Amino acid sequence: MEYKFSDKVLSLKPSAIREILKMTSDPNIISFAAGNPAPDAFPVDEIKKITSDILNENPIAALQYSVTEGYAPLREAVKLRLADKGVFDPERDDVVITSGGQQASELSCKSFLNEGDTLAAESPSFVGCLNAFRSYNVDLTGIEMDDEGIDAALLEKAAKEKKIKLLYVIPNFQNPSGRCMSWERRKAVYELACRYDFIILEDDPYGELRFAGEDIPAIKTLDKEGRVIYAGSFSKVISPGMRVGFVCAAPEIISKIVVCKQVSDVHSNILAQMICHRLITQYDFDSHIARLRGIYRRKYGIMAQGIKDNFSDKVTVTEPQGGLFVWATLPEGTDMIGFCKEAVNRKVAVVPGNAFTANADDPTTSFRMNFSTPTDEQLIKGCVILGQLTREYLG
Amino acid sequence: MEYKFSDKVLSLKPSAIREILKMTSDPNIISFAAGNPAPDAFPVDEIKKITSDILNENPIAALQYSVTEGYAPLREAVKLRLADKGVFDPERDDVVITSGGQQASELSCKSFLNEGDTLAAESPSFVGCLNAFRSYNVDLTGIEMDDEGIDAALLEKAAKEKKIKLLYVIPNFQNPSGRCMSWERRKAVYELACRYDFIILEDDPYGELRFAGEDIPAIKTLDKEGRVIYAGSFSKVISPGMRVGFVCAAPEIISKIVVCKQVSDVHSNILAQMICHRLITQYDFDSHIARLRGIYRRKYGIMAQGIKDNFSDKVTVTEPQGGLFVWATLPEGTDMIGFCKEAVNRKVAVVPGNAFTANADDPTTSFRMNFSTPTDEQLIKGCVILGQLTREYLG
Repeated sequence: MEYKFSDKVLSLKPSAIREILKMTSDPNIISFAAGNPAPDAFPVDEIKKITSDILNENPIAALQYSVTEGYAPLREAVKLRLADKGVFDPERDDVVITSGGQQASELSCKSFLNEGDTLAAESPSFVGCLNAFRSYNVDLTGIEMDDEGIDAALLEKAAKEKKIKLLYVIPNFQNPSGRCMSWERRKAVYELACRYDFIILEDDPYGELRFAGEDIPAIKTLDKEGRVIYAGSFSKVISPGMRVGFVCAAPEIISKIVVCKQVSDVHSNILAQMICHRLITQYDFDSHIARLRGIYRRKYGIMAQGIKDNFSDKVTVTEPQGGLFVWATLPEGTDMIGFCKEAVNRKVAVVPGNAFTANADDPTTSFRMNFSTPTDEQLIKGCVILGQLTREYLG
Repeated sequence: MEYKFSDKVLSLKPSAIREILKMTSDPNIISFAAGNPAPDAFPVDEIKKITSDILNENPIAALQYSVTEGYAPLREAVKLRLADKGVFDPERDDVVITSGGQQASELSCKSFLNEGDTLAAESPSFVGCLNAFRSYNVDLTGIEMDDEGIDAALLEKAAKEKKIKLLYVIPNFQNPSGRCMSWERRKAVYELACRYDFIILEDDPYGELRFAGEDIPAIKTLDKEGRVIYAGSFSKVISPGMRVGFVCAAPEIISKIVVCKQVSDVHSNILAQMICHRLITQYDFDSHIARLRGIYRRKYGIMAQGIKDNFSDKVTVTEPQGGLFVWATLPEGTDMIGFCKEAVNRKVAVVPGNAFTANADDPTTSFRMNFSTPTDEQLIKGCVILGQLTREYLG
């Protein structure tokens, strides 16, 4: 039978990363291609205790249908944490729980964009969200970045050329680049949003994972007009398998996201929401996060040393102050795809940079390396192998 | 600030049922308006034991990222159960795990329909899925039903008038009508799908809850061409709060649904998938279902007796052989909305039938009553109050 699929899915390909991850299920391959939290980052004992308590104390509530907006005590706890960071303002914001950060982006896009509307995003950016936007047949416009984040001049140029309706950014420890948007740049981006009347979707799954430098306030803290949608997630600080994230925005926006969520999955897994609630309110969650920061500081340190000791000095590498990723760039003209294929042949997997560009044919010689998932030994060995390869390629 | 939301959400209103449910949080109201499993239907002890075992034996797998297709052992277990019913054929089908049955319908719609394409559905039908379809701006065409299910002649008439791309049906104990599509009608519907080349989305969340009569094979059992998408759910047989459902269809269709799911929520909560897997493979799941059928047989019996003893004989009421709902119809010309409002004034909530019609302005004098959620006492008392009201309205 010949199927007539929708235009929406015909243009979509399975995520390059997830396809690569399937290949790297080979246990002999050292994978720098994932984005998983380190196994020792999970608060396993706490989750065991909390889950047992919930199922003993209140099993029906944990198993029955719940409301689309999310488990009310979790929403309140999220509001408190976000208020501490200046992100949530009780006078002008509301919060909805989502099925991971991914759903926050998808529902924000669905709420605002018609087919053909322009969505701008950093390029490179997180392929999962780029694909979510593509699945709504929007005009996806990539804006290049520098070390301070998205290039404000290029963003303004794009805004003058066409009506940008929504801008997607990951200001903290961006996926895939690891870059952190400077405070000056955040202010410039917000001013452009006001001047050219677009909405900012600020995706912040990694903000809690800063292991060096000083916190920079979210763009949402600047927002007096209700034009910033702030999306967060418990995937990187509690468990990605639980699929619990959240969105903080103006109530009018939240009510549209709730309507879209209602038809998407009714509500998020309620036991997982209850676990997150207890973990962040009845345990010392800040100590837990401090522990995670320590794990990733150490792991990044091993990778950074491995890069320094082994890579050709013709490779440019970002130096993230948090998050999970390093972004390496080969000199212009290098066959990056060939490089990544040869790396896999030598049993190290990285993600080719074109998986992350707004347009698949944007030229790039970069690739993404993850330091949270490999073991310490794999980090060392993988950098030796990749380093050898860079020297063979580049001299 | 004036928001420019997408056309998709501007037409969408929050689900009438969920809004009514919010009102009925008043503990003094007897709610026949919900669709929740009975609290004593949950396998609480088994879930406690399984959850504890999983978190002791394999916590990292239960907390880490997983694959979009779903937990592989659960997919295999679902395939085995569906093969037993003739629904899954290993030669031509595949299975993906979804975040509840709702997501199965949403992703099927997204995979096949462009804006303006025609989707036909029984009218009345499940408001959650109708709203999912509306959120893709499709042309939603309602087809009336009789006691054997969707009217095949009206369906053929619609198929001649315009190109139907997808037909949504709930053959077993339909929500809201409680009706079961006859075997002859299932065959007729499948033949129409072949003749007029449309896809059938067969939604079967209630099929396991038959408490009278004989099982009727799914439409999917007739499918030699790969044009039936079969959607099931653990919401009504294990726990709706877990949000675990599944889709069985041709591999080409499953691969598109997987791509759409990837951008929607990456994957479904993995602990919940592992719990479902152990519950259906390591426990006597069929005995559990037999117990549920007993609960609902008894509860329906109480409501049926209450209707018989109290309702005006001018009210027509369906006599479901399974599921959770009874559909009551007042004589033509009755002010059904006024009736439902007066019922709430007297502390009994039912759902007005126009919440379920394909077009909001379709005339209807019906309302939906649920017998799974109320206590036995509430079933009796609610029927007395509603019955008194029917006699006042209709004599």
